[in-house]
Amino acid sequence: MIIVLRPDATESQIKHIIEKVESLGLKVMVSKGVERTIIGVIGEEDLLRVQPLEVYPGVEKVMPVLAPYKLVSRDFKPVNTVVEVNGVKIGSKRIVVMAGPCAVENYDLLLEIAQAVKKCGATILRGGAFKPRTSPYSFQGLGEEGLKYLKDVGKKTGLLVVTEVMDIRDIEIVSRYAGMIQIGARNMQNFNLLKEAGISKKPILLKRGMMSTIKEFLMSAEYILSNGNFNVVLCERGIRTFEDYTRNTIDISAVPIIKRLSHLPIIVDPSHGTGRWELVEPLSKAAIAAGSDGLIIEVHSKPEEALSDGAQSLLPDKFEHLMDEIKNIARAIGREI
Amino acid sequence: MIIVLRPDATESQIKHIIEKVESLGLKVMVSKGVERTIIGVIGEEDLLRVQPLEVYPGVEKVMPVLAPYKLVSRDFKPVNTVVEVNGVKIGSKRIVVMAGPCAVENYDLLLEIAQAVKKCGATILRGGAFKPRTSPYSFQGLGEEGLKYLKDVGKKTGLLVVTEVMDIRDIEIVSRYAGMIQIGARNMQNFNLLKEAGISKKPILLKRGMMSTIKEFLMSAEYILSNGNFNVVLCERGIRTFEDYTRNTIDISAVPIIKRLSHLPIIVDPSHGTGRWELVEPLSKAAIAAGSDGLIIEVHSKPEEALSDGAQSLLPDKFEHLMDEIKNIARAIGREI
Amino acid sequence: MIIVLRPDATESQIKHIIEKVESLGLKVMVSKGVERTIIGVIGEEDLLRVQPLEVYPGVEKVMPVLAPYKLVSRDFKPVNTVVEVNGVKIGSKRIVVMAGPCAVENYDLLLEIAQAVKKCGATILRGGAFKPRTSPYSFQGLGEEGLKYLKDVGKKTGLLVVTEVMDIRDIEIVSRYAGMIQIGARNMQNFNLLKEAGISKKPILLKRGMMSTIKEFLMSAEYILSNGNFNVVLCERGIRTFEDYTRNTIDISAVPIIKRLSHLPIIVDPSHGTGRWELVEPLSKAAIAAGSDGLIIEVHSKPEEALSDGAQSLLPDKFEHLMDEIKNIARAIGREI
Amino acid sequence: MIIVLRPDATESQIKHIIEKVESLGLKVMVSKGVERTIIGVIGEEDLLRVQPLEVYPGVEKVMPVLAPYKLVSRDFKPVNTVVEVNGVKIGSKRIVVMAGPCAVENYDLLLEIAQAVKKCGATILRGGAFKPRTSPYSFQGLGEEGLKYLKDVGKKTGLLVVTEVMDIRDIEIVSRYAGMIQIGARNMQNFNLLKEAGISKKPILLKRGMMSTIKEFLMSAEYILSNGNFNVVLCERGIRTFEDYTRNTIDISAVPIIKRLSHLPIIVDPSHGTGRWELVEPLSKAAIAAGSDGLIIEVHSKPEEALSDGAQSLLPDKFEHLMDEIKNIARAIGREI
Repeated sequence: MIIVLRPDATESQIKHIIEKVESLGLKVMVSKGVERTIIGVIGEEDLLRVQPLEVYPGVEKVMPVLAPYKLVSRDFKPVNTVVEVNGVKIGSKRIVVMAGPCAVENYDLLLEIAQAVKKCGATILRGGAFKPRTSPYSFQGLGEEGLKYLKDVGKKTGLLVVTEVMDIRDIEIVSRYAGMIQIGARNMQNFNLLKEAGISKKPILLKRGMMSTIKEFLMSAEYILSNGNFNVVLCERGIRTFEDYTRNTIDISAVPIIKRLSHLPIIVDPSHGTGRWELVEPLSKAAIAAGSDGLIIEVHSKPEEALSDGAQSLLPDKFEHLMDEIKNIARAIGREI
Repeated sequence: MIIVLRPDATESQIKHIIEKVESLGLKVMVSKGVERTIIGVIGEEDLLRVQPLEVYPGVEKVMPVLAPYKLVSRDFKPVNTVVEVNGVKIGSKRIVVMAGPCAVENYDLLLEIAQAVKKCGATILRGGAFKPRTSPYSFQGLGEEGLKYLKDVGKKTGLLVVTEVMDIRDIEIVSRYAGMIQIGARNMQNFNLLKEAGISKKPILLKRGMMSTIKEFLMSAEYILSNGNFNVVLCERGIRTFEDYTRNTIDISAVPIIKRLSHLPIIVDPSHGTGRWELVEPLSKAAIAAGSDGLIIEVHSKPEEALSDGAQSLLPDKFEHLMDEIKNIARAIGREI
Repeated sequence: MIIVLRPDATESQIKHIIEKVESLGLKVMVSKGVERTIIGVIGEEDLLRVQPLEVYPGVEKVMPVLAPYKLVSRDFKPVNTVVEVNGVKIGSKRIVVMAGPCAVENYDLLLEIAQAVKKCGATILRGGAFKPRTSPYSFQGLGEEGLKYLKDVGKKTGLLVVTEVMDIRDIEIVSRYAGMIQIGARNMQNFNLLKEAGISKKPILLKRGMMSTIKEFLMSAEYILSNGNFNVVLCERGIRTFEDYTRNTIDISAVPIIKRLSHLPIIVDPSHGTGRWELVEPLSKAAIAAGSDGLIIEVHSKPEEALSDGAQSLLPDKFEHLMDEIKNIARAIGREI
Repeated sequence: MIIVLRPDATESQIKHIIEKVESLGLKVMVSKGVERTIIGVIGEEDLLRVQPLEVYPGVEKVMPVLAPYKLVSRDFKPVNTVVEVNGVKIGSKRIVVMAGPCAVENYDLLLEIAQAVKKCGATILRGGAFKPRTSPYSFQGLGEEGLKYLKDVGKKTGLLVVTEVMDIRDIEIVSRYAGMIQIGARNMQNFNLLKEAGISKKPILLKRGMMSTIKEFLMSAEYILSNGNFNVVLCERGIRTFEDYTRNTIDISAVPIIKRLSHLPIIVDPSHGTGRWELVEPLSKAAIAAGSDGLIIEVHSKPEEALSDGAQSLLPDKFEHLMDEIKNIARAIGREI
């Protein structure tokens, strides 16, 4: 931690700050520069992080030196984490594709889509039973009925199921029906939900919030790990910017950055990230080329009848084409699907 | 709703779209332009909003004409809503100031701060018992103990209490202790929490999410109103931008915009919006001048000992000065505090 | 300057960095912490700023401690700069209002508008002869003809004239006709234009770029001052964010921030900043309350016939109302108009 | 163009608008909905685009239906444009790599770097003689001396030269020394520079502004094309967002979007887009996979001595590795380098 003092900081103010820092068992090193005095603090930065040093008289600003996360960092665990769910490994050489409809709408449609994506090489079925919708008047999902369909279709097709939990009260029921729990972008900083997800021990798919920095994203994962659950897969799904051609702007650099900073697997959601089906294939290829451990893609066999986000769903034949393309990319970088 | 077709849309595609629209009981008006054919839809736009028209063959884009919210809109209720909580009216000529510490830390400190802000003219006491913190290692609030302090201090000082609920399971307990429930920025799209807040009938202070448009902000309020609770006060607290001198960028134009679009009261939080105590007074003055119905301000008598966000808290004497200044502004625009 | 080393930095890497820093005549202070070694550099930070220290082996990041600007900073000149143009003082107790059409369209219209704004208390006439337009097919301004109208109307009404220069080759001609030269948002980082503006010695109105931080804004002003021209007035005119109700988001906190960091005057442009005439008055009031030294406002007597940005122009009677309102605010904060 | 009226628009207001539109030779279609009346306009939208319809009494908003650009659009020219510069084709099956130092620093270093990048397969040499720098105190480039080095080194190595022009007065001289002229991000809306670039007929590399939408980017290219120069290569180089780990956020979706909307070639600059050399390779791979026609990459053989942006420059051996990797990606998608 570096404490930069104001040009007019007095000796007694400096003394006061040093006393405070030392009272926490930390050592200081004072550097009187031409224009500013700087106090460097040696010792566990976390002890200081929770102190409101900025308000001490004479302080201009406080600059943390270390990242605030621990358990998720590659410093803590240098080798890649591989999250294994019922035999499907996420974070290994083999790239994992999750696919399915945005929302579960009815049993037959779900089965039809699941069979189609399975045939093309997807290993995880996605589909929402609880849907976070901006409008109270939009379709909100089938609830437990939808979970039942997911479980049944998963069993029938041999696909693992991932589905979103929006409400902390639903963790238990979702855990019963699904192999992997998704925490959506809007809940990335729903801290109590993160804690419960940590306690639950279920594999978690944590999506990046639309307005969250990579650092905050990792801090949210830290909530889960620090509650005892290391089975976390991260998902870049686009951030909010001024560009309005796409629904969000996929931050593809988040993939290699997270690979550097953390040992956790990272996948990309090109469907929600762009909001336009015609961009899903090129962004999927970019994600794999950048080192993504997987993809989560919306596929719908009857988008005209979809109750949610039809515009970003691929038809099964387009999905098949996408799978062929990304297999080529995977091979080119020494991975497989 | 306007449906813009692609230049190469065929007659049979156009026919297909028209049939779909008419099957919903709506009327269409087709306009064949030089470069594009456009289909205007007459009737209740909401019927179409949930249809994935973008995926119909031949469609280039779909442009909604009307705002997606209803109950919160000024079209629906032309006169200002005044939210009354135990005699305190929010949204009337008198500007309301909520003040207090970021987090409730201990009883004596809370009482000291409450007495100080009361003396200066605040009518509502703010303070968090449950704190949303980016890091799992930061102080998370006193929980129910904090709620008890708030209730007791509120009673002793005659201040109404507003405090945040982060967890849907805590609505009932927070309702018991506080006069007004705050839904924080990170939960603005926690839709189930919004629904329960609607059902609870308690006055709600809904903060704008850091990455939320004004339209989404109003849609979140719509969740509360559509569940039967019209006692909603909105709060602008800064949005996330590239500017890094302040923690967030206060969107002061949100105040007059919301006044135009909605009948609900709107207040401003200059403490969280800027993250710097020295900006709280000028931003408070700007907010009142722009038409804000109130302010929510962090005040702390010992910021050096604050367990949360000391850097944005005002000392009581600075708060007193602020109150004097905004009284002058209020008078200048024909309001009072 | 603080140099943070990687956890795996070797002794010889550290030695290499220290040698480099010392070879520049600077002193170092090495702090070996638990997790990281940090090198603090004492001496003129500017010497180091141009060194690519980030690429030295073993370096994790480099954190500058001081602001990169000098002449524009309040540290350099603690008292407010008052820019005086033909008797009009900007940056003093008296708030200055610049008003006029977006573009100069014809002589009679310009005169009519100028007379109207003069009557209401404006002291500077704004109006573009050269117009930066997103589309090559939009009206690009009258050029020198427009400058002549401005000069003549300014003389006739006793208003000082401010007008934009877009092209470095036009500085001389614009200087001949106008009392003050505007550098627009899109040219805030047109560095050669800034240099010439510095050399010209004309009073400059420098607008903040849509995507520029406050620090970059001040660095652009530094270009002008460092070329010998201290007559610079800054103008906040909105930054680009995800919010799409307004054209830009006015960052009202920029006003008090710039007042703290710099001695230069700062005004606000609520017309371009919002893009909607109905928001101009509330944002003008907010700007004055926040400490702005002035306003620049679009006024048009026949907005239906405006060739540029009619939607954000006020009618003269609305402008009159605005002037009355901000006089009240100015009085409330101890200033005048 | 769709004109949406306010709910309280009167018959005479509607009549007034219709008269205006018809006076321009356009046809209208009025649609009286349940909640709003809408006027659809048939005919050349451009005629209306320059009319300030928003200010007409009774108008709520105006929604353009068509894109505002013409010559750059794929509607105008369905086949890909291939820009050919001295035998190097940009926009064809073969991917083009431009590489070199950020700034030209001295002759020997430039030659060394040029030879290194040539050996790895680059065909165009990049390097700045005029450098846009945020600070007036940073290295501003060697000017004409640098241009001479570029020309000479280009000749010696057989590399085509691209270099930036910052000042409209330098177009002629830069044209003399370089095969291709770069217009940088900060000048993307320097409209007079764009016009002159159009008149010059030289191949232009136009970089996307940090705060510019794709639509605005294409409009800036339209300035060049509409002045007679169709030899334009577009370059995505990152936009400004709240994410602060990277200098900018590369909007990789811009590549397939521009491919859809326009016939012009598009390349990506991963060096400026990320600001960190370790991200250049993964982002390069992503760009190629997404369909980019090329890359522009900073390479420096002695980054410790670079006078500009050393932190984002690759060493020649890292560049060699990158070239190998992207060759594999190119092959996987049926292209070559």
